[in-house]
Formats: sequence, C-alpha cells, structure tokens
Amino acid sequence: MSALWTVKVLGLAAVALPLWVELLGRFLRRLRPAGALNEVLFFPSQVACVEHIFSSLSPGSCLCPLPHGVETSLSRLLRRILSATSSLDLCVFAFSNVNLSRAVLALHDRGVAVRVLTDRDYVAVTGSQIGVLRKAGICVRCDACSVHMHHKFALVDGRLLITGSLNWTLTAVQSNIENVVVTEEPDLVRPFAEEFHRLWERNDPARCLRPKRPKLRSGSISYD
Amino acid sequence: MSALWTVKVLGLAAVALPLWVELLGRFLRRLRPAGALNEVLFFPSQVACVEHIFSSLSPGSCLCPLPHGVETSLSRLLRRILSATSSLDLCVFAFSNVNLSRAVLALHDRGVAVRVLTDRDYVAVTGSQIGVLRKAGICVRCDACSVHMHHKFALVDGRLLITGSLNWTLTAVQSNIENVVVTEEPDLVRPFAEEFHRLWERNDPARCLRPKRPKLRSGSISYD
Repeated sequence: MSALWTVKVLGLAAVALPLWVELLGRFLRRLRPAGALNEVLFFPSQVACVEHIFSSLSPGSCLCPLPHGVETSLSRLLRRILSATSSLDLCVFAFSNVNLSRAVLALHDRGVAVRVLTDRDYVAVTGSQIGVLRKAGICVRCDACSVHMHHKFALVDGRLLITGSLNWTLTAVQSNIENVVVTEEPDLVRPFAEEFHRLWERNDPARCLRPKRPKLRSGSISYD
Repeated sequence: MSALWTVKVLGLAAVALPLWVELLGRFLRRLRPAGALNEVLFFPSQVACVEHIFSSLSPGSCLCPLPHGVETSLSRLLRRILSATSSLDLCVFAFSNVNLSRAVLALHDRGVAVRVLTDRDYVAVTGSQIGVLRKAGICVRCDACSVHMHHKFALVDGRLLITGSLNWTLTAVQSNIENVVVTEEPDLVRPFAEEFHRLWERNDPARCLRPKRPKLRSGSISYD
C-alpha cells in the first residue's frame, strides 16, 4: 500500500511539475525581458505608399502611383514610432524625412508628449523638418556643446528604443545601406533614457553659461 | 489492483515526461539570453592612454603625457574588439581611427580571420586606415552599389555585435556625441550576420556585372 501511494504521488508530481515549470516561466518572464522585443530593420527601404499608416483608409483606396499594401522597413519604423501612447523622446542628428516628421506630428496631435533634441548646425539646412515641428508647438532643443550631436535614437513611451545608423533623411531611408535596432531590452533602453535626460538638461535654453561648441581640430577628418 | 495502478501511473508518467522535458527545455532557452551581454558606450570618449590594452605593460609603465589607468568608452570598445578569437567581420562607413585600426591589425597578426567591408567613396580619403589594413594582408571589399554604405557595425566571433552611430574616426571618438551598442542578443546578432554575408557576397570583386552606384537625386539632402 505504501509503495502504491509512493508511485501515485510520483505520477502526480510528473504531471504537476510541467505545469509548475510553465507557471514559473510565465512569472519570470514578467520579471525579466525574455519576451522583450528585438528587431532589426535594414535600409534602403523599398519605395511604397505609407498613406494607410496615417489614416484609417485601406491600402487599396489610395490613388497615388506608388505600390500599395507593401510592408517595408520604413512602414515598420513608422508603426513603431506611432505605437507611442504617452511619450516620444527623439535625439537625431539630421531630420528631413517628411514621412517621419508626419509621424512625430501625428503623435503630438494625439497628445503624446514629444521632445526633440537635434544638432544645432543642421536645424536650418534646406529640407530640415525641425522648423515644422517647432511651428506645431513641439518642444525642440539644439545641442551646441559638441562637434556633432550624432545620435539617431528615439525612445517610445520610455520602454522601446529605436537606434542605429539611420539619420531621419530621405537619402538615408531610400538610398543608403543603413540599420535600425528596435529593442525593449531594459539594459539597452535605460542608458539611452539617461543619455537623453542628460543632453536635454544640458541644452536647456534657460541655462546661461552653456559651453561654446568646440571647433574641429585642423587636419582632422571632417566626416562625422 | 496494485499492478493495475502501477501500470496506470507508469502510463501517465510516460505521457507527462516528454511534456516535462519539452517545457524544461523551453524554460532553459528563455533563461539563457537573460545572461546575454548588453552594454551601451557613449562618446566622446575621455582622452587617455590605451597602450596597456595592446601590450602586456602595466598602465603606469607608459611614459606618454596622457592620463593612465583610466577606463574610457574607447578602451572598453577596444577590449570588446580584441576579445575576438576566431573572426572579426567589420562593416564601417568611415575608418580613420588609428587605435581602432591597431586593434584590427593586432587581431589579424594573431591569426583571427578579419574581413572589412567599407564605403568606396571613403577608402581614399586622407587618414583612411583601409590602405593600411590592405597592406597588412587583410581582406577588404568596398561597397559601390548604394549612395552610402552607412553601417558602422562589427561582429566578434559571430556572437557579439558592436553597432551604433559611431564611425571609426578620430572626430567621432573624441569630439562627437555618439553611441555604441554591444550585445550578444541572438535576435539582434543574427540579422547583422546575414546582412554582412549579403553585402560581402554582393561586393565580391570576382563578380563582373556589379550594378553601378546610383547618383544622388538633385535636391536631396547630401548629409547621409
């Protein structure tokens, strides 16, 4: 009888254990980023219509001559940006891409708190979208403390990091070989959030004693 | 009765055991990336002596006027690169930093398989290290198929990804605000390894029918 009960208990344990392991796994997934999003987008992106991303129209209802209903690196990037519900912190060297600007403006219109930090030298370049964002009421600060503020990252709701080689320009999106990493890994997101906070505070216009932008040393390479 | 129960329990265990093994496997797979390296380096890097990274000398034994024994973003980056034991695949837009070049040459001297892919337009720029690498016998290929091959990533032993906004130049390391992500996340490493393979094959000099580099559209922004 005792042996029989031992066997019964062992059988029950064999059934219960997988369930226990699964539940423990789910619990730990909540604690740590095992299910964290990790995605890489490569560019140049195929040229395709992105109108349906901004409106409730179906891809087929747009009459523009571009291909429709095509999932591209740009459309995936736009969707990631537009997934923001509370905040978008953007830190980008060059910003002239109209579709990316449209996404930032759409978030601002929705009431998402948008902050943009950019390089001072590229604000007034022809095609720059920084003036458009400012006119719409978006808070923009320009870095003037380094030779180039060369970051190209965004933080969506403080939890999703978008970073890589891609400047937010038409050439970068359509013509260059580029990469964008999209990740929720806290060990990657946290340092970028701290970096944004540091740069944002450092370039507060209310600060009077801002250090002057250093000049490039003569003889140094001028490309970034 | 006893024999019947034993058979029942054994049957149940036979069903439960594979399930248990499978779930345990999944659980362990989920746990594995938790220990994966994720690090962010920010630049500009403090200027300090890096001689001890390349030699067995202690930091104090170098007589140069730079600060010694200081851990900087550059020294951490150099250590990550020098951790390669079998291969280094480097895909970088601009490469003029002498210390980073020295690290790549050191790996080549050690017998590490080094492949370098770069942008054609920047190979011959003053200060470029590409000629130095080629002279040392390192295999270099130049991309000529896009407006800019704007990646700045490296794969160490096919398992560690180093990527970000940082071109491998002196200005980028010492003067710009830049970032470098260092990660072992398989979901991030794998796409970059595939991208390197794709670009490496596409720019094989043995291929005769290579597409010509497209020209920039007139009116487009010229900065990356």
